[in-house]
Amino acid sequence: MSKGITTRAEDYSQWYNDLVLKGGLADYSAVRGCMVIKPYGFALWENMQAVLDKMFKDTGHQNAYFPLFVPKSFLEKEEGHAEGFAKECAVVTHYRLKANPDKKGTLMVDPDSKLEEELIIRPTSEAIIWNSYKDWIQSYRDLPLLINQWVNVVRWEMRTRLFLRTAEFLWQEGHTAHATAEEAVEETKRMLEVYATFVEQFMALPVIRGVKSISERFAGAIDTYCIEALMQDGKALQAGTSHFLGQNFAKAFDVKFLNKENQQEYVWATSWGVSTRLIGALIMAHSDDNGLVLPPRIAPVQVVIVPIYKGDESKPVIDAKANEIISALKLAGIRVKYDNNDNTRPGWKFAEHELKGVPIRLAMGLRDLDKNVVELARRDTKEKQHVSLQGLDGFIVKLLDEIQQNLFDRALVYRKEHITIADKWEEFVKILNEKGGFVSAHWDGTAETETEIKEKTKATIRCIPLNNPQEEGKCILTGKPSKERVLFAMAY
Amino acid sequence: MSKGITTRAEDYSQWYNDLVLKGGLADYSAVRGCMVIKPYGFALWENMQAVLDKMFKDTGHQNAYFPLFVPKSFLEKEEGHAEGFAKECAVVTHYRLKANPDKKGTLMVDPDSKLEEELIIRPTSEAIIWNSYKDWIQSYRDLPLLINQWVNVVRWEMRTRLFLRTAEFLWQEGHTAHATAEEAVEETKRMLEVYATFVEQFMALPVIRGVKSISERFAGAIDTYCIEALMQDGKALQAGTSHFLGQNFAKAFDVKFLNKENQQEYVWATSWGVSTRLIGALIMAHSDDNGLVLPPRIAPVQVVIVPIYKGDESKPVIDAKANEIISALKLAGIRVKYDNNDNTRPGWKFAEHELKGVPIRLAMGLRDLDKNVVELARRDTKEKQHVSLQGLDGFIVKLLDEIQQNLFDRALVYRKEHITIADKWEEFVKILNEKGGFVSAHWDGTAETETEIKEKTKATIRCIPLNNPQEEGKCILTGKPSKERVLFAMAY
Repeated sequence: MSKGITTRAEDYSQWYNDLVLKGGLADYSAVRGCMVIKPYGFALWENMQAVLDKMFKDTGHQNAYFPLFVPKSFLEKEEGHAEGFAKECAVVTHYRLKANPDKKGTLMVDPDSKLEEELIIRPTSEAIIWNSYKDWIQSYRDLPLLINQWVNVVRWEMRTRLFLRTAEFLWQEGHTAHATAEEAVEETKRMLEVYATFVEQFMALPVIRGVKSISERFAGAIDTYCIEALMQDGKALQAGTSHFLGQNFAKAFDVKFLNKENQQEYVWATSWGVSTRLIGALIMAHSDDNGLVLPPRIAPVQVVIVPIYKGDESKPVIDAKANEIISALKLAGIRVKYDNNDNTRPGWKFAEHELKGVPIRLAMGLRDLDKNVVELARRDTKEKQHVSLQGLDGFIVKLLDEIQQNLFDRALVYRKEHITIADKWEEFVKILNEKGGFVSAHWDGTAETETEIKEKTKATIRCIPLNNPQEEGKCILTGKPSKERVLFAMAY
Repeated sequence: MSKGITTRAEDYSQWYNDLVLKGGLADYSAVRGCMVIKPYGFALWENMQAVLDKMFKDTGHQNAYFPLFVPKSFLEKEEGHAEGFAKECAVVTHYRLKANPDKKGTLMVDPDSKLEEELIIRPTSEAIIWNSYKDWIQSYRDLPLLINQWVNVVRWEMRTRLFLRTAEFLWQEGHTAHATAEEAVEETKRMLEVYATFVEQFMALPVIRGVKSISERFAGAIDTYCIEALMQDGKALQAGTSHFLGQNFAKAFDVKFLNKENQQEYVWATSWGVSTRLIGALIMAHSDDNGLVLPPRIAPVQVVIVPIYKGDESKPVIDAKANEIISALKLAGIRVKYDNNDNTRPGWKFAEHELKGVPIRLAMGLRDLDKNVVELARRDTKEKQHVSLQGLDGFIVKLLDEIQQNLFDRALVYRKEHITIADKWEEFVKILNEKGGFVSAHWDGTAETETEIKEKTKATIRCIPLNNPQEEGKCILTGKPSKERVLFAMAY
C-alpha cells in the first residue's frame, strides 16, 4: 500500500489527521464538527473503557444512565456552570417534522410542535443528575452515592479536530455525593489518581498531576484537579479532570441530607471525566512518520501474523503452524490476528499493519519454519529478529510488556527534557516558541497576569503540580512576589 | 421493609410501575418521557449487553460510533423512512444560549445561532450511516460491511412507560451492507436467530419468530423479521426486529459497488436492533406480586448472603464462614453479594432481595452453621431448604441453571396455553377480550382488513410465524380465502 502520510516535520497537524483517517480510526461526518468513530478506533476505545470501567467499579462506583436532555432552566440554576456552557449548547426547540406543503418530498419543522421549555443536549450532566439526587438522598445512610455514566455529550465548538475537539464526543462522567467536604476532596483526588494510573500504565503516557488555576477551573467547581500530558510537538494536552464541586450543585438543586447529628445539611459533590480525546493524546504521544504506534495493553490487535506463501504447497504447512501459534497466543490472553487475505501481498500487509500500529508482526515463510524460527518485527523500534518457535508465546508475552515499558520510558525522557525552568520573560517566551514543552515559572497568582501571559504568548497555566515545592520567587511577567512555580505551556 | 407493591390482579399496570420504581431499576426524570436508569437496572442492562455484544462479535460484527445528529435533508432521502419517523423527531434548531437581558439570571436561545439546516436527534441511524457507507464502499472487496453500535436514540412518543416506551432509550443497531440480496436476507435471519437465542437462553423468555405484515414493517424496509414474546397479562411484546432493507438506502444515498463482473451495482442492506425495552419484557414475563424475579444468567446479583447475627460473638464466626463461601462462589464465576449492613434487620433484607429478584438467598445463622448447613431460599418457587456447606458452590451452580430453566419452562407453558385458534369472529373477539394471548386466525392478506380488525378489537397482527404451515381457510373478518393463519394479539 502507498501510505501517503505527511511527515511530522512537514506538517504536524496534517500528520495527525493522516494517521486518524488512513489508520482507520475515525472519519469526518456530514454533520459539522461530528466524527464517525470507525471500527478500529472504536475497538481501541472499548479496550480503554474496559480497563477504566473496572477501575471505577473496583473503587466502589456503579454505572447508571441519565437523560440526554437538560431543561434550559436547570442549566441556569448554577450560575458559573450556566456561564461556562451556555455559549456552546445544541438546543432542541421542536419535537416534530411535517411534510413541507411548498416543496413536495421535503420535510419542515412543525411550528405546532414547539416545546414550552427548550431542551439542551447535555454538555455535561451535573444539572440533570443533581436534580435526581434530590429525590435519592435523604439521610447520611444514602451517602456516599458513587455513580458513573458512559455517554455522548455535545459542546458546539467552533473549531474542531478529530478526537481532540469534536462537537459530539464520547466520555464517562462520574458524579458523586458525600456527607463531608473532606470525603469529597478525597474522592476527587482518588479519581485523579485512577486516571493517572490508567494513562500511565495502559496508555504508556506519563502525566503531571496538578490543580488548575481559578480561571481554568471547570464551570461550577471549587477546585479542578487535572492530569497533563505532553505531545511530541511540545504542546500539552489535558488528559482528564476531577472536580471538587463543594456544595454548589447541592445548593442549586436543594439537595440536603439529615446528618448523624440529625441536622439538615447540603451534600458535597465531585465530578470527573475522561473522553475520546484521550485517543488523540495516544496518537500524538507515540506515533511516528510511518503510522500509529499503539501501546500493547490497549491495542485492538497485539500481534499480527502474515503468512509468506511460496507456491500452493506452502499454504497448508504455514497455515497449520500459524494456527498452532494463534491457539497458544490466545490461550495466553493475547489479541492476535491472522492476515491470510489472498487479495493483498505481504509487503502491502506489512505497511498496513505498521500504519495501524500493531505492536508485533510475525512473518511466516517456509524457509524460516524449516529452521524452526519466525521473523518478528517490533513496531516501536522497527527492529527485526528471528525468534524460535519454541516458547514463542512466552517470548511474546514478555516482549509486549517490554514494548509497553519502552513507550512509556521514551515519552518520559521526552517530557523530562521538556520541562524547562525560566526566570526571565525573554527566556520564557523563547522556550515557548522554540523548544516547547512545559515551562516552570513563577506567577503572582492573579487572574489578570494569567490572562496577560496568555494574550502575549498563547500559553496557559496547565497546572500547579501536586506536592509542588514551595520556593520564593518573582512573577515571570510582573515581578511581584510568588511562592511557587507553576507549569505553563501551549496546549491542545 | 414495607414493599407496598400493587398486586397484578388489582392493577397490572401499576404493579409493573411499582416493580420498576421500588425495585430500583429506573426512575422518572424531569424531562418529559425520559427515564433515569438506576444502577441496579443498568447493571442488568450491562449483563444483557455483554452477552449480546459477544454474540455480535462471534458472528463477525464490529462496533463503531456514528453521530447523534441526522441532518433533516438526510431523513428525507428515503421516502418511507421519512414518513415513518418525521412525526416523532426531536429537532435541534440553534447552537447557543445567551443571557436573557429581560430577566437577570436566566438564559435564552440566541436567535443569531440558528442552524442553516435543522438537525434531528437520531430516531434510528440508517440515514447517517448510509451516508458514510457511500465513502467506505467501492468494490465487492469492501463487502460485507458488518457494523453495530450501542447508542441512545430519541423518538418523541406521546404516551410513555418506563422501559417499554420512552422518548429516549438505549439500544444497539446493526447496519450491514452486502453484495447480494441473498446474503443480506441470510444476515437478516441470522441476527433474528441471535436475538431469539439470547432472549430464550438468557432472559428465559420463549419467543415466536416471524415476519411482520406490510403495515407493521419498519419504515424503509422490504421485510421486517421479529421475535414476539407474551407477557403475563396476555399481551404480546415485540422483543427484537431484524430488517431486510433491500437496496432502498443504497439508492437513497447512492451507494454502489463494483461487483466481480466489473459492473456498478447498488448495495444490499440490513438493520437490526433490540433496546432497553427488553428490560420491560423481562420484568413482566417472570415477576410476581412480591417483586422482581430475574433469570440467573443476567441477574446483577445471583446469590445474596444474609448473616443472622445473635450477639456480638456470633459475628466473626458467621463472617468467616460467609467469606469462605463467597470465595468459592466467586471462583465458580457467580455474582454474590454479602449483605452484612448493620442498619437493617434480616427480615427487611429478605423482603428487599425478594423485591429485587435475587435468584438465591442464603441465610446464615449460628445454629445452622453448627449443623454444617445454611438455609437456602429460591426466588422463583419461594421454596426454602437446608443445604449442606459441603459442596455448596457446586450445588448453587446447578441450582442457578435449574432456576433459569424453570423460568423458561413456566413462561413456555403459559405461552402454549395462550395461543388459541379461532375460526369465527365472535370467538376471535371473545378470546382477545377475555383470555388474551395470541389468537391464530386466517386473514385475507390485505392491509384494509388488518386495519379494520385493529379498529374493531385493538389487536394487531404480531407476525406471520416462520415455517408457518400452509392451510386453506377463510379470513376471520371478511371470509375471503386465506392460505395460512397469522398471530393476532393486543400488544405493548
